[in-house]
Amino acid sequence: MAAFSIHGDIIWTENPGSFKAVRNGYLIVENGKVKAVSAEKGEGDVIEAEGALVIPGLSDLHLHAPQFAFAGLYMDEELLDWLNHHTFPEEGKYGDLSYAKRAYDALAAELLRGATTRVSVFGTIHTDSTLMLMEILEKAGLSGYVGKVCMDRNSPDYLVETTEDSLMETERFLSLSERFEEIRPIITPRFIPSCSDSLMRSLGTMAAERHLPLQSHLDENLSEVDWVRELCPWSQSYAAAYREFGMLGPRTIMAHCVWPDDSEIKLLAESGAFVAHSPSSNTNLSSGIAPVRKFLDNGVHVGLATDVAGGSSLSMLRMIQDAIGVSKLRWRFEESLSRPLRFAEAFYLASKGGGSFFGRVGSFEPGYDADIVLLRDRSAETVISQDLSIEERLEYNVYRHPEDTVMAKFVKGRRIF
Amino acid sequence: MAAFSIHGDIIWTENPGSFKAVRNGYLIVENGKVKAVSAEKGEGDVIEAEGALVIPGLSDLHLHAPQFAFAGLYMDEELLDWLNHHTFPEEGKYGDLSYAKRAYDALAAELLRGATTRVSVFGTIHTDSTLMLMEILEKAGLSGYVGKVCMDRNSPDYLVETTEDSLMETERFLSLSERFEEIRPIITPRFIPSCSDSLMRSLGTMAAERHLPLQSHLDENLSEVDWVRELCPWSQSYAAAYREFGMLGPRTIMAHCVWPDDSEIKLLAESGAFVAHSPSSNTNLSSGIAPVRKFLDNGVHVGLATDVAGGSSLSMLRMIQDAIGVSKLRWRFEESLSRPLRFAEAFYLASKGGGSFFGRVGSFEPGYDADIVLLRDRSAETVISQDLSIEERLEYNVYRHPEDTVMAKFVKGRRIF
Repeated sequence: MAAFSIHGDIIWTENPGSFKAVRNGYLIVENGKVKAVSAEKGEGDVIEAEGALVIPGLSDLHLHAPQFAFAGLYMDEELLDWLNHHTFPEEGKYGDLSYAKRAYDALAAELLRGATTRVSVFGTIHTDSTLMLMEILEKAGLSGYVGKVCMDRNSPDYLVETTEDSLMETERFLSLSERFEEIRPIITPRFIPSCSDSLMRSLGTMAAERHLPLQSHLDENLSEVDWVRELCPWSQSYAAAYREFGMLGPRTIMAHCVWPDDSEIKLLAESGAFVAHSPSSNTNLSSGIAPVRKFLDNGVHVGLATDVAGGSSLSMLRMIQDAIGVSKLRWRFEESLSRPLRFAEAFYLASKGGGSFFGRVGSFEPGYDADIVLLRDRSAETVISQDLSIEERLEYNVYRHPEDTVMAKFVKGRRIF
Repeated sequence: MAAFSIHGDIIWTENPGSFKAVRNGYLIVENGKVKAVSAEKGEGDVIEAEGALVIPGLSDLHLHAPQFAFAGLYMDEELLDWLNHHTFPEEGKYGDLSYAKRAYDALAAELLRGATTRVSVFGTIHTDSTLMLMEILEKAGLSGYVGKVCMDRNSPDYLVETTEDSLMETERFLSLSERFEEIRPIITPRFIPSCSDSLMRSLGTMAAERHLPLQSHLDENLSEVDWVRELCPWSQSYAAAYREFGMLGPRTIMAHCVWPDDSEIKLLAESGAFVAHSPSSNTNLSSGIAPVRKFLDNGVHVGLATDVAGGSSLSMLRMIQDAIGVSKLRWRFEESLSRPLRFAEAFYLASKGGGSFFGRVGSFEPGYDADIVLLRDRSAETVISQDLSIEERLEYNVYRHPEDTVMAKFVKGRRIF
């Protein structure tokens, strides 16, 4: 793969505290990896990033592909009603491959236009349309994980499997997904209410034995947390139940984590699991505000996620904005116990924070995968534009133009948009 | 003025509880007023609203014109720091008319592209640039109020007046603004910390004697509330101080009202004052979440506001989204004491709720001013579009495309965009 450099104003975060920025510099890429950020060009062509800011590709740690069809709708309902009235009926349609193709093509097209380069995606229980989803995302050039969803209880007739079928179909899914390179399979029990203990134990074992990643939901909503307490009376907590099923580890993503108690935060930290913080979704579904500051203070890995269609936007820039916003509101309601996320921290979560789930992703440190976004910089439209630093220009675009702002996008050094 | 009808899918709210919607109907306009919504066309031309939803013009009850220059920036700071570090220095520039013209032209252009037809705007202490702002907004075709800001204490040297100058300049402002028809003057003490008791009493008297509207800020931030307690030890509350100054009445807008106590809510209700609820700004500046449900339950008039540049967006559709979002989070933190705003309620606040400050504005009831927006309807892009009601299509656009979505806009029957 040819080497090249991108020339322009470059900004990234290596830790949550502060930005690194180089004005008029060169981001040097070789063999799909970042070689350096330098004042001089490297080997090969130079791509001019005029009118853009050069930022790392962002990672969306949690979204539901079949829910994109109704993103932005039905937002007057809470989680469990919203699942029963809208989400499950829509997901039921994805046994129909031609319907799924239309819906998944639309999702991939919109993902491509945004700043996201890595994803961890829920499909549905339907193996064949989930494989098609993998193919569509792989062809679009994105990288990450897709899971065939497992559900064998407390689900409507049209969206439920027997335990045996769920495991067999997961096997078939794993086997048929071997042909994909950039979009890889992930074990995906929907959440404890939808999955019997027996199914959970088998999926946990499968993930461990085959070294596969795993994704699910944890502590999103108070009614859900109560329900899990009834379903798993043998477990000290919702998180402890996942641990008991062998499902908490460094290759695990747990979406939401709005209502963990201290023992659960400890479990998350010790296991190395990633929290997919979904601020828009947690607002839209009246779930609450996740204690992100506490996660960070306790060493829990955190990334950001759109959680479409609990979230109505696929924009990770919007998620940065919303993560900061809800952290400020939590701060106010907690009487200043947990200081809010600063812009550099939220940007870190969207880039290197979540990117770390996928490897060396989300930063411009040497050896990192060359996931690069040329973000359209509209800050010149303000009358004070001449006074702005690169960091301020980035903030401007995140707050004012979070949608449709990508001029070019690279995954592992390959241009995909 | 010629009569005309707009033909298409029409939706509005007459009360906070529910939408009215007519598919494939005619909104009949005569002499700048709504005559009816009907299945048949009225007198005059028919304007086809294909690809659009026909909604009432929205009212932005509170924004700071000179702050538009830095909208989307400096969002890591709380109110009082943010005022001192960024807001006051920027406002200090508006003695320079050529700078002000560039900044205000940009504001008017963006307001014109959005769904807003009515505004209540803060300028700066500078009379001449504030008059220029009125001219620019009037030429753009918008309707509403603009105030020359009064500040005679606790303000930086470059942005402060003597009490006498503040009153004299307000007189000059009122006199020179007589030439404008659609953009009218409003008495504008910044807030109690910036205005001496003497200035406040004089401004209160001026507003009462000349039957002028008045706008200011109330209970935005806890530090500000504490400060006002020190500044007005003679007053039972922040709101009571405004009442004492003769400033609370049905032609008053009080921005924010995040932290009112019950006695203040009672004062607001009894006076008939309007609360400009600014959910984005109150989030960005870590102010908190206003008790909007409590306002509505107690009969306080409420409208929505962008509060640019505490808010970073001029989109009133985004304010609808954010008003719903923060009400859900408040509900969660208050242990279900105050149920969240539903979509139809938040839309009402943005249209008829705030519009009522300007007269019969913000609804399609007969006799209402013909403030009409043809909102681009992008719901056809979803795979489930054929199943959507008009209300759902509106919700889709509010959540998914809150920016740049206006195809045409009318104020009092005049097309301005």
